[in-house]
Amino acid sequence: MKTLLIPVLFLGTTLGLRAEDGHQLWLRARATAPVTVVLPARNSALLTTARQELQLGWQGAAGATVTLSLKNDKAIRYDGFRLSARGVQASTERGLLYGVFELLRRQQTGQPVSAEPSNPSYELRLLNHWDNPDGSVERGYAGKSIFWRKDSALVVTPRDKALWQQYARANASVGINGAVLNNVNASPVILSAEYLGRVKAIADALRPYGVKTYLSVKFSSPVLLGGLKTADPLAPAVVKWWQGKAREIYQQVPDFGGFLVKASSEGQPGPQDYGRTHADGANMLADAVRPYGGLVMWRAFVYSPSDKDRAKQAYNEFVPLDGEFRDNVIIQVKNGPVDFQPREPFSPLFGALKKTAVMPELQITQEYLGHAIDLAYLAPMWEECLQSDTYQAGPGSTVARCTNGSVYRQAHSAMAGVSNVGLDRNWTGHDFAQANWYAFGRLAWNSVAQSAQIAEEWLKLTFQNAAGGAPPPADWNTQFLTPVAQLMLASREAIVDYSMPLGLHHIMSATHDHYGPGPWWAPPRMRADWTPPYYHQAAANGVGFDRTKTGSDAVSQYQEPLASQLNDPATCPDQYLLWFHHLPWTFQMKSGRTLWDELALHYDRGVQQVRQFQRTWDQAQPYVDAERFAAVQNKLRTQSGNAVMWKDACLLYFQQFSHLPIPAAVEPPMHTLEALITYDTPPRPPRPARQP
Amino acid sequence: MKTLLIPVLFLGTTLGLRAEDGHQLWLRARATAPVTVVLPARNSALLTTARQELQLGWQGAAGATVTLSLKNDKAIRYDGFRLSARGVQASTERGLLYGVFELLRRQQTGQPVSAEPSNPSYELRLLNHWDNPDGSVERGYAGKSIFWRKDSALVVTPRDKALWQQYARANASVGINGAVLNNVNASPVILSAEYLGRVKAIADALRPYGVKTYLSVKFSSPVLLGGLKTADPLAPAVVKWWQGKAREIYQQVPDFGGFLVKASSEGQPGPQDYGRTHADGANMLADAVRPYGGLVMWRAFVYSPSDKDRAKQAYNEFVPLDGEFRDNVIIQVKNGPVDFQPREPFSPLFGALKKTAVMPELQITQEYLGHAIDLAYLAPMWEECLQSDTYQAGPGSTVARCTNGSVYRQAHSAMAGVSNVGLDRNWTGHDFAQANWYAFGRLAWNSVAQSAQIAEEWLKLTFQNAAGGAPPPADWNTQFLTPVAQLMLASREAIVDYSMPLGLHHIMSATHDHYGPGPWWAPPRMRADWTPPYYHQAAANGVGFDRTKTGSDAVSQYQEPLASQLNDPATCPDQYLLWFHHLPWTFQMKSGRTLWDELALHYDRGVQQVRQFQRTWDQAQPYVDAERFAAVQNKLRTQSGNAVMWKDACLLYFQQFSHLPIPAAVEPPMHTLEALITYDTPPRPPRPARQP
Repeated sequence: MKTLLIPVLFLGTTLGLRAEDGHQLWLRARATAPVTVVLPARNSALLTTARQELQLGWQGAAGATVTLSLKNDKAIRYDGFRLSARGVQASTERGLLYGVFELLRRQQTGQPVSAEPSNPSYELRLLNHWDNPDGSVERGYAGKSIFWRKDSALVVTPRDKALWQQYARANASVGINGAVLNNVNASPVILSAEYLGRVKAIADALRPYGVKTYLSVKFSSPVLLGGLKTADPLAPAVVKWWQGKAREIYQQVPDFGGFLVKASSEGQPGPQDYGRTHADGANMLADAVRPYGGLVMWRAFVYSPSDKDRAKQAYNEFVPLDGEFRDNVIIQVKNGPVDFQPREPFSPLFGALKKTAVMPELQITQEYLGHAIDLAYLAPMWEECLQSDTYQAGPGSTVARCTNGSVYRQAHSAMAGVSNVGLDRNWTGHDFAQANWYAFGRLAWNSVAQSAQIAEEWLKLTFQNAAGGAPPPADWNTQFLTPVAQLMLASREAIVDYSMPLGLHHIMSATHDHYGPGPWWAPPRMRADWTPPYYHQAAANGVGFDRTKTGSDAVSQYQEPLASQLNDPATCPDQYLLWFHHLPWTFQMKSGRTLWDELALHYDRGVQQVRQFQRTWDQAQPYVDAERFAAVQNKLRTQSGNAVMWKDACLLYFQQFSHLPIPAAVEPPMHTLEALITYDTPPRPPRPARQP
Repeated sequence: MKTLLIPVLFLGTTLGLRAEDGHQLWLRARATAPVTVVLPARNSALLTTARQELQLGWQGAAGATVTLSLKNDKAIRYDGFRLSARGVQASTERGLLYGVFELLRRQQTGQPVSAEPSNPSYELRLLNHWDNPDGSVERGYAGKSIFWRKDSALVVTPRDKALWQQYARANASVGINGAVLNNVNASPVILSAEYLGRVKAIADALRPYGVKTYLSVKFSSPVLLGGLKTADPLAPAVVKWWQGKAREIYQQVPDFGGFLVKASSEGQPGPQDYGRTHADGANMLADAVRPYGGLVMWRAFVYSPSDKDRAKQAYNEFVPLDGEFRDNVIIQVKNGPVDFQPREPFSPLFGALKKTAVMPELQITQEYLGHAIDLAYLAPMWEECLQSDTYQAGPGSTVARCTNGSVYRQAHSAMAGVSNVGLDRNWTGHDFAQANWYAFGRLAWNSVAQSAQIAEEWLKLTFQNAAGGAPPPADWNTQFLTPVAQLMLASREAIVDYSMPLGLHHIMSATHDHYGPGPWWAPPRMRADWTPPYYHQAAANGVGFDRTKTGSDAVSQYQEPLASQLNDPATCPDQYLLWFHHLPWTFQMKSGRTLWDELALHYDRGVQQVRQFQRTWDQAQPYVDAERFAAVQNKLRTQSGNAVMWKDACLLYFQQFSHLPIPAAVEPPMHTLEALITYDTPPRPPRPARQP
């Protein structure tokens, strides 16, 4: 008998560091005790979900009774809830489910239960999936789409359904209540009857977790799909077509959320093709879905090659339309005025549209922050944006407060995040990219939540119980949690440092899909505002984009006192300096150093920082399962090389204009500029192998 | 008038740092005064050369008279000479020419003239060119062959002649008195009448500078070129064929030096194909050239796939033949027993052949030391070999003394260097690779010359007067000469550190022609002794090639007390440790560290060292012309990246066996092992470029 015990014991030990694939995300806790759940007396898939979750994850007192009660309560807003010793109280079923997840999270992370009501900052907390009907994902770095497949696209398999449920569960656990299933560069086919059948299947899988389904639509769908001669939003036939399409959708998906629209932007068709305004287009669609309670999210990501400053155009197009949109239209605005760069100032549209609902669009997928290779915890970037003061209604008019209904009356409030989810076994490609999905949900729920707290929470849920439910070692907090949380919190700034410090932006490689440096990239006949030199403006006389009052005057799109602060290089924060100013290479920085030296030191700091991340992670090895340890270690290595490429490329490229030496304190380049430029162009045919 | 002066003054300033292409090598001095030259009364091209050189470069007293006198002098050996206030005395015309170059060099480098006789350590000081008739150069990194061209191969142009003269002049200036014009992997076509015509033209161009012409021959030439059925060295028809060929050559080139032969080696035909010995083959050829005073240099670079230790085979094949070679045969032995690695112990053949002339073969071209990309000053490596004590005739039997006639009686003594010269404008690809051509000549002349002194001499000649003859700035010695000489002297050890420290060897990439790391390289069906795993023997139980008495017993090819010293890991010098020993990863080194940690620290030290070279060179910028500064700076950058690749590749590859962490003091890897292995295999088709 004893001999049988030995392998079991060994198994227990091995389990502690067993290989694992990260598929369970932050949802690893297993119940340690039975629990009795008392539900409101109604038949509801959502309530069934809530009960199941309690039973799956209960780590409270054995045999406790938890009561989920629906009750109107003035202190509870939207899908908010209130926890108590006895259970969860909310005014919606979703609220109960979110309360259950919060209760379990507090058990798992060792936090006390508070009786304070927990209300979401935003009514709608949405993921945008840039997934195409062929299964590809634009800016996706975690495999193909979880929703669409190239082959047998419309057959729904049990595996599909299971995956969609897991996806919805993960969303529900952090309060995400909506998903736009397809790319904003939308294919008209998504609105065909065949595809709507699959949309219904997805919606059915998401609904028990409180996740509503939305679709991106192509503005010219009436022409491309409907066979009309026009997509003019004021043409009666077009209006009728959309009305019919809305009816068709709602027959399949009665709680369909609405449309997300990218129109008159980057070559997408839109109302401007017919001499109409964004408001004409958005309102027509809003009217089509209004009977069913649907919404239209209309993107403000617009710019034309003719404009002298791309950063200004969204403001210029949308501010004159303020007040002209229906109340079921929300203008979806990217956090910065250009395009999801590692650091941008907030978009001046936030707070400037005072009679129009505006929602922030954040990018969870790391298009410009190292794909799923570089480790970038993005909550600090989002926190930075959400807490930026727009001054549009006096001091304290943060981006968050200007968009979540605190400052302006708006019928709906929302926040969207461009998802990083794909078919990769760990969902997000990089194990740490899961933290961004998690953090997006947590910040959308609580726009003043702190990045540091979210990071610790996520680390505990994701790594603390990796050991098959075994309690973590005594030094887990000091040896793993604290250093790795610090790594996460420093990670985005490191990327800013080694890629685009001091307000530089949009100088990435185009060849490698925005991974790696490309300050030189400017093919003949390419539109200028797609090339890095347009943005960095490096020349003998200096570097940076002059957006001051004597330049493009983008600063004037900001409210005072911010406009004046940004306009003066003496008061403009270093982190936005070259965003707003074109300054001589020898400009004296607040540090006393020249701009050139400061730039070089930032690039080098980024590189050294990544090496410290590597050391931190290496030292965390005893606390992590072998598979995730190795995966992250390998990605950090590649990131380390990427950081050096960025530093070398930018310093050597800019040095051509500055003619100044790289400071001796900076690690000398290990690439030649020529080799880096060659790497950024398609490689030549391979050389044949030879004998030694 | 004054306005005209200004540009002239500016021109003077600019000239000081004017761009230049390095074509002048170390031969930059221009005469600063007229000189009267008194020559022996005979008609001689060599004497004319000597006079011209004096007139071109004289920097002594104005109007001085220099007398070149031929005189027998017991103190003067070979082409030695004696300098005096009045001129140069020698017993050969070559001696006078070398004396002239020495006189001028002393003027240019500010050294006093010594009356001590200067005698060459070796009678013959030869370059081996691995140049093919199609113009390619095996292991050449400085462009195509200066001797052979693919197109219109046999037309001798005035430009050819001028280049050959410049080449010969550079050789003469450092005492090199012979050149083997073609690859040891010889094409039989070189002995055809057509090619011999071009050989004659080359010989005619080299002769006025005292450089004799030699050829590499393919042992099977009688079959391939002569149409015989055999190349058996004992077959009368073969003997006759070679006799006829020798006669034909000497008709064209009366002072032809002789043959260099790679036979029964790496697939080359040889006497063993006919059951004959190396001695049979070499002696037959030696007899063919003997009537004309010709020599045969027979290479000992032999190894077979069946031998258990490639390092042993040359010794095993040649020692039994000691005493069987004609006295006009010299056995040409590579410095180490394997193949020109960054560090090898000396070949055990040195000193072991006591009745046979043996000549060292050094590799000037950087096959395993970074091509013409990495900066490697090789004199310290050669000095290390030449000064190694073989103990074969008691203590003090250095490799140099065992080969230059000091220890053993031998009819001829010689040293060969595999040339790094090509058609590149600066001759050697890397500006600092010129130093290796220079140093080879200086060491062949004086086998106890010191690397440091040669480096300073070369730097002075090559960079001091770059400024169009202007005197260097006052701080030139402290700011340029001293730090850059230190860089040169440290450069080879840095390469050892970042590529093959502690006695590791032959672990380079095959795909990239021996540039960069390839410890994993072992394609299916590849003969084992061409793959790195054969040499490093990395496994769970340790690393290194066991050549101890209980291993391959290669140590026993060395004389005592060396054999015992090398056989014991406690006494074996660290630098040869893994050459002779297979040791556990946790073996305790003399430093107290484990072998694994020591290895990691060596790799890292190499990387950091190259970065210091970069800083040193950057600080030298004010003292160097812009073109050579930029060229070297760029190459150092590429080397820096190469160093990191080596470090990362070897540490990550070996870590698979050691399972030990990389010490925290070591810079974390910035490549993944997978990416490095992928890089070492032919790349995949390029990804198409995309819009941003």
